[in-house]
Order: sequence, then structure tokens, then C-alpha cells
Amino acid sequence: MKKRPLIFVTNDDGIQAPGLRTLIGLMRKIGKVIVVVPDRSRSGTAHGITINVPLRLETIAREPDYEEYCCNGTPVDCVKIGFKVVLGNHPDILVSGINHGSNASINIIYSGTMAAVLEGCMSGIPSVGFSLMNYGWNADFNPSGKYVKQITESVLENGLPEGICLNVNIPDIPEEQILGVKICRQSEGTWQEDFDERVDPTGRKYYWLKGIFIKAGDGLDTDEWALEHGYISVVPVHTDFTARHALEKLGYLVTPQSR
Amino acid sequence: MKKRPLIFVTNDDGIQAPGLRTLIGLMRKIGKVIVVVPDRSRSGTAHGITINVPLRLETIAREPDYEEYCCNGTPVDCVKIGFKVVLGNHPDILVSGINHGSNASINIIYSGTMAAVLEGCMSGIPSVGFSLMNYGWNADFNPSGKYVKQITESVLENGLPEGICLNVNIPDIPEEQILGVKICRQSEGTWQEDFDERVDPTGRKYYWLKGIFIKAGDGLDTDEWALEHGYISVVPVHTDFTARHALEKLGYLVTPQSR
Repeated sequence: MKKRPLIFVTNDDGIQAPGLRTLIGLMRKIGKVIVVVPDRSRSGTAHGITINVPLRLETIAREPDYEEYCCNGTPVDCVKIGFKVVLGNHPDILVSGINHGSNASINIIYSGTMAAVLEGCMSGIPSVGFSLMNYGWNADFNPSGKYVKQITESVLENGLPEGICLNVNIPDIPEEQILGVKICRQSEGTWQEDFDERVDPTGRKYYWLKGIFIKAGDGLDTDEWALEHGYISVVPVHTDFTARHALEKLGYLVTPQSR
Repeated sequence: MKKRPLIFVTNDDGIQAPGLRTLIGLMRKIGKVIVVVPDRSRSGTAHGITINVPLRLETIAREPDYEEYCCNGTPVDCVKIGFKVVLGNHPDILVSGINHGSNASINIIYSGTMAAVLEGCMSGIPSVGFSLMNYGWNADFNPSGKYVKQITESVLENGLPEGICLNVNIPDIPEEQILGVKICRQSEGTWQEDFDERVDPTGRKYYWLKGIFIKAGDGLDTDEWALEHGYISVVPVHTDFTARHALEKLGYLVTPQSR
């Protein structure tokens, strides 16, 4: 590995999240760290960007090898403003998390943590998102530390294939029970959702989204299988949404004049 | 086609958008229409969901073959609350748009219009997003009408492959110049972005994101090529982010104890 790498840290649980503090602590052992994070929880904001409100940037800490900023935007905004305004150039790696809760399976689509990672990837930066399978604010992030550090160092050393970033999920078990790292595909789970209907003091209805995650009967090559069996799952992810296997199946949409 | 199909309409430009009104007009010619849309522009919210604020639902119109509601949430919230609370069951098709501006290439990742479509797809509903390559509020949606209706009817007739939805973009040219429909892959464009730094009256800095879209030198099979050459682009899209071609390239991340 070259000299002290420049590590960009962000998350979606906001500046006060314990998972962020664990990640910062681990990264400071590896290199120079620049943190740009949302000023509050922006969980579930996916790849949203802020268009109608201007962004603000607040300096929290500024030391020789460590800088910390917070922003009123989404995780993707934090990456964009972090790269352009704070850094003015590109870091050697972007890490996001450690998220409080799973971003395995379809959860990636709602995730601000992983959106920041995809945004870093779109700028050509090796980018990795870390999530612990425990939504609690008091979750124990210590068992994950060894692997978070190891994966980060390995990506710094080896890089990532072009256009690829990593979705890393960590089982919520003691360190000695973790069996290692498994390269996986995204499994096919879904959320079974409903709305909790309530009435406010003025008599108007309001709704809270609630749901439970339903695992699919997926194969041995999926992230959910790996996590259930004590492995850390690593899914290589890209930003091409094209379903290539379906390209040949849509001939019926092509009208005669366009052939 | 079976009897009058049940068509769910949403968008991300909000209830006042002219593109939405065009889409509603076209869909009312085909079937029974249920509209659930954001109460304001929620462009750029991607697949975001509302977690910290309860959702509200307001009835705008309720006729035998037409119902219209607005919601304070994102497009994805509109789909979830639309299916669960308004409909209580599933529509025959979900259409989203017509978006003011391109959702071709990487724009899909930021798009609320296409997020609603992906959400519909995740519920097993044939879902199609329509976008016109013109960001203007006064854009002319008329030339697109024939094709929007035709594609919707074809999807109602033929369905879509499992787990697949459609990202349809329409060039901003007169109807007689449109050459037809082309099935494409997502092209590899990027945004070249920067921040406009300003100072508010109290002396504090604030930032506006700005950028220009940079087309990649993509092939004849891409959406950008089709749009530039007078075709309507149709990209089949799915919710699996796995970069399968990279699965074999990440062996260096697997530590010895996990083999």
C-alpha cells in the first residue's frame, strides 16, 4: 500500500450514529480521514439529491489527519459536496456506514448508505458500504471491526473492477463465530408492508409505513444465505439497471415502422 | 384485452405537472384510472421513502371511473400507500410520468418517476415509466401521446417478463419525425457537476448543485443513441444490482478461514 491513503467516510444514519464512530475509529488507523455526513438521520433516502433547498456545510473538526463536516443534504449530496467543495479532488477510497441494519437483498434499493457508495463508484472511486444486521442504536459494532478494516485495506491494495462497488453486510454475532467473507449475489427477498392508520387530535387521518422482510427461498450463492450461515456477505454492485436477459423478449413493443 | 383495465398513475413532478395531466388523459381512454401523486415536486428523490414523518392522503376527485389523490410522500410512498390504502389490491398496470426531462442513461438512478416504476415491479405489477427529453414546464407532450398509449396497451395485452419493468424515454421532436420504438440498454453517460457557492444575507455560505450531462461514446444499442436518432428508447430494467460479471474477480477479499 502507498503512503497514508485519503479515506472519505460517510453514512446515512447521520452524524450522531454509533456505527459511524466505529467506522471513523477504524479508518483513522489506516489513513487520513475526511468525514462528510448528514446532520441527521437520512435513512431510506436512497439515491435522492437535494434540489429545492440549498445545501449547508458545517465544520465539526479540522486536524492534520482528520476532518469532519456535516451537511443538511442526503448521503448522495454529502458525497457530491464532499468531493467538490471539501476535498476539491478525489479520495483513495470511499467507505459508508457502518449502517445500523441490513442492506442485504432488496434493502439496497432504499439505502442511503449504499447510494453514497454507488455515487462514489460513479466518480471512479473504489467504494464500499458496510452494514451490521442490527437496527438498534446500541448494537455492538466491535465484532465487525477486524473485517471492516481488512476489507478496506484489501480494496486499497487491489482496487476494484471498473464500475463496481461493494455492498458488505455483517452478521450480528460474536467475532469468533464469524466464518469469514463470502462473495455473493443479491438475494430475492421482499418487504411485506402495510400502513398503520391513526387519527390526529384534529380528527385527520395519518399513516405510518410498517413492514416485515420476507426472505426468498434463495440459493447458496446469495447474501441472505451467507449472513444466515455466519458469513460476511460481499455483493459486487453496479449502476447499470438494464435487465440484459430481457432485451430479446420485448419485440412486441416494436411497432412496424421502426423495424 | 380484457374488460376495462385498472390503471394506477403516479409521477415525481407532483400533482400540478402538465406531463401528469397528459398521461391521465391518455390513460382514461384505456381504462379505469387511479391517480396517487406527490403533493409537490419530488423530482430527484429516487427510491426514497418517508420514515420520520407520517403520511397524509388527500382526495382530489372521486368519480366512477376516475379517482385522484395526493400524498405528502415520495413517489415510492405514493405507490405503497396507493396499493395498500387506496386500492386495497393491485392494479393491472402502473404508469409513471410523463416526466419533464430525461430518465435515460444514469438519470434513472436519481429518478422518482422510475423509482415508482421499480416499486410497482417489486409488487409484481407490469410497470412503465415515461419521460420526455424536455425539462420545461411548457414542454409539448402531444407528439408522445400515440406511443405512450400504444406501449401501455401492448403491455396490458402481452404483460412483461417476470421482474422486469420499462424505462421509456421520448425524444422532444414532432410526432412525424419519431421513427418508432427501439429496445435498448442503459448508456454510460455521467454528470459533470459542480457547486454554486453563494453567501446569504447573514454572511453564511450556501451551495446549489449544478451540472451538465456528459454522454458517453456509447454504441448503437444504447438509449442515448436511440433518442439522438429519433427513436423512443425502451430499456428493460430490474432491481438486481448485482454485477454478475464481477463475482469471479473478487477472490482477494476472501480470507483463508472462509474457504
